[in-house]
Amino acid sequence: MTQVVYDVIVLGGGAGGVPAAIRAAQLGGRVAIIEHNNLGGLCMNQGCVPFGHMMAASKILGSLSLGKEMGLDFSPVSKDYTTLIKRQNELIAFMRQGVAGVLKKNNVDLIEGRGRVTGKGRIEVNGEALQCKNIILASGAGWLKPDFPGADLKGVINSDDLLNMPKLPGKILLSGKSPWLIEIAQFLHQFDSEVILTTEEKNILPNENKTIRTRLSKTLKDQGVKILTNVEITRLTKKKDGLHAVLVRKGKEERIVVDRVIALRRGASLTDLSLDAIGLNEKGKFIQVDDHMATSVEGIYAIGDIAGPEQRHYSHLASTGGIIAAENVMGMDTLFDHRTIARVLFTQPQVACVGLTNKDAKRAGYDVITGSAPLSMNPFGMLISQNNGMVEIVAEQKYGEILGIHIIGEGACEMAGQAVLAIQMEATLEELTRAAFPHPTLSESLVEAARECLGRPIFLP
Amino acid sequence: MTQVVYDVIVLGGGAGGVPAAIRAAQLGGRVAIIEHNNLGGLCMNQGCVPFGHMMAASKILGSLSLGKEMGLDFSPVSKDYTTLIKRQNELIAFMRQGVAGVLKKNNVDLIEGRGRVTGKGRIEVNGEALQCKNIILASGAGWLKPDFPGADLKGVINSDDLLNMPKLPGKILLSGKSPWLIEIAQFLHQFDSEVILTTEEKNILPNENKTIRTRLSKTLKDQGVKILTNVEITRLTKKKDGLHAVLVRKGKEERIVVDRVIALRRGASLTDLSLDAIGLNEKGKFIQVDDHMATSVEGIYAIGDIAGPEQRHYSHLASTGGIIAAENVMGMDTLFDHRTIARVLFTQPQVACVGLTNKDAKRAGYDVITGSAPLSMNPFGMLISQNNGMVEIVAEQKYGEILGIHIIGEGACEMAGQAVLAIQMEATLEELTRAAFPHPTLSESLVEAARECLGRPIFLP
Repeated sequence: MTQVVYDVIVLGGGAGGVPAAIRAAQLGGRVAIIEHNNLGGLCMNQGCVPFGHMMAASKILGSLSLGKEMGLDFSPVSKDYTTLIKRQNELIAFMRQGVAGVLKKNNVDLIEGRGRVTGKGRIEVNGEALQCKNIILASGAGWLKPDFPGADLKGVINSDDLLNMPKLPGKILLSGKSPWLIEIAQFLHQFDSEVILTTEEKNILPNENKTIRTRLSKTLKDQGVKILTNVEITRLTKKKDGLHAVLVRKGKEERIVVDRVIALRRGASLTDLSLDAIGLNEKGKFIQVDDHMATSVEGIYAIGDIAGPEQRHYSHLASTGGIIAAENVMGMDTLFDHRTIARVLFTQPQVACVGLTNKDAKRAGYDVITGSAPLSMNPFGMLISQNNGMVEIVAEQKYGEILGIHIIGEGACEMAGQAVLAIQMEATLEELTRAAFPHPTLSESLVEAARECLGRPIFLP
Repeated sequence: MTQVVYDVIVLGGGAGGVPAAIRAAQLGGRVAIIEHNNLGGLCMNQGCVPFGHMMAASKILGSLSLGKEMGLDFSPVSKDYTTLIKRQNELIAFMRQGVAGVLKKNNVDLIEGRGRVTGKGRIEVNGEALQCKNIILASGAGWLKPDFPGADLKGVINSDDLLNMPKLPGKILLSGKSPWLIEIAQFLHQFDSEVILTTEEKNILPNENKTIRTRLSKTLKDQGVKILTNVEITRLTKKKDGLHAVLVRKGKEERIVVDRVIALRRGASLTDLSLDAIGLNEKGKFIQVDDHMATSVEGIYAIGDIAGPEQRHYSHLASTGGIIAAENVMGMDTLFDHRTIARVLFTQPQVACVGLTNKDAKRAGYDVITGSAPLSMNPFGMLISQNNGMVEIVAEQKYGEILGIHIIGEGACEMAGQAVLAIQMEATLEELTRAAFPHPTLSESLVEAARECLGRPIFLP
């Protein structure tokens, strides 16, 4: 009996691996996917999906204050956290079955176990040696120990641990570089925890446009989320009354006592794969890939969280990369479009930034023009009190090429779709001014921002 | 003193006229706009804006059942209709001031009064004769008497009357051809009126894709809105206990007693303008225009509700046409893109249809392929219970040209922006499959529907 030689083996059945495996199979490949844990990866099991659910609940609670302005009174509201968690766990179980189903439908062999690279075209799993022409590394990232003293104390948890708590902590300090912490902070606040969000940076979302970060920060503070910037945790100790965190801000020490510290720090899962067997650096922070999602080793591709730094751990980046890797494995020649990967937050207001910021565009040498349209001047935005909402466009002067679109407001993550398409299709500012978005929608502000870039807004004062 | 000769006079300061006037002024034109009533027209004063506000309140109420599934309990909810109406009236007053402000900022002369065309390049208003090189007719539509016997009885009202009622009627029958009635029916139902929505057609939204109309119909019925199709009101009489409507359905008579009948029937406002002075037909249903928004008479343009049948009375159609008319008046050569005008409903679920239906595409001779992705299979759609949501794409086989995109679900009217851009920018199906829409969003279903068109969905079973 001859052993199967797979066209491609995908290591990891998460947000990147699953679409990669399916796309390769659709192109006629013989494909296997190896997963030692739950199908769907972090995104479906402990990330986008459960926290997306929690943010959706949080949004309903957030809409009550608008309702009140409209004459709707809901008091008192009761919140059954057990029901919330039970519902999302059932949905996740259902989605996992769905993933298993589509893999099967597309004739992808699903192998449960921990895969290890033993050489070029060779993978070992459950003691068995498999052969393949190509490998797609898609095993994601894992938790790293937070970098403050006391980080291994029992009350220091990550988002996985939070999902496993039967009830939410009373007072929580959040620490780390991941924008995800902002979503978690707002959710916990809506569910009545006392929240202190800390960052070592000058601002939350320090790399985004000033408008975005200041508006988000202001809105969160107005809602009651405490934000401490320029803060370093210098030590954490456990005492009878809770975790004592000593923070340093502008040279001054401050002590805060909390029930839990949520610290997120993730890095590519490189060490369990035996990557040195094929000459890939296991000691790096993540695997470097080119625009084909190819590593420096022929026949080895990498996608998703294993191939990028923590601030680029986005599920849509993983799935987009997965499809491109699969197509290149199967002999096509497709390239990853870095311009269109949105940086999103499912907070209220939502944030979605696509493409270059003002600063990045200038740094890249563009002759930059910008335009913006506040959602507080958008008819629908006024109706639903989008007082801190904004659409901002960064473009290049000569041809009106759109370089970046930055949105804060209700539904920004859906509106990001228009930003993605505009940039992908290389719509010029002039073309965007001609988009007949329906009335009354927030999307109209995208058109008005394009007009403002060109110095001819219709409705802005 | 020489009299001013305006480059253009815009008759009507509504959704079409205002952007037309501003755009013409931005292009260097000397512009006047004439309005005898409130600036902002039907849309801002009695249409999109107040009803958009009411639909937003209705949406918050609608989200409570999802909240309940998530463990959030809001009972009892009190609804203060007076507060709702007061809030929207204040917002409308503010928006009207805004419109006056932007007209002034752009140096458009605002003339309050009823304008009348006295000849080519001649307009009379408040007894004064004005001269201009071009006229843009933008005076909208007005109410027509509904076409059933008894339509002039006192309890028969239109949407303007509804807005002026201090409290909502108990039991209401809705009649007419306008899709707007569906929004009103759902709002009234959410605010505890008993609602019977009738249509002479086989279905509500009879001209849209079957998926859209059946899903909307099912959802409304599930929510408790009574829908009667194939129904004609044969007579209406007033008695002590209310309005008695005799309906005929499939040959059988049925009598329904209600407190009010809401009947919408609108037609272009042609008769007060003295259009025969310039050779335009005052007896037609609306003014015919070409793709430049030009009428058959040189120097006379028409936009918005005056230039289209009732089912095309959309504010975004008026504003888009307004800008095009203004540009052509000022010597540019721009064309109206009929493909991208969305047909929207702000119900829950929302409906947005852009471009051709399956049937229309076949009728136009295209070799049609279709693809769809239910929101019940979209991760975020599952989380927020989008069980009846759907994205459907109509495309042409050979080049993958996208001919139509049809959406039903939460946020469909915002997602319509992607449909508009895709069709405007002539994105092919293949290009749409490569749009990296953020995860988890409903927009992802647009990409999956494009893949399904091409026979290669990733996540659909």
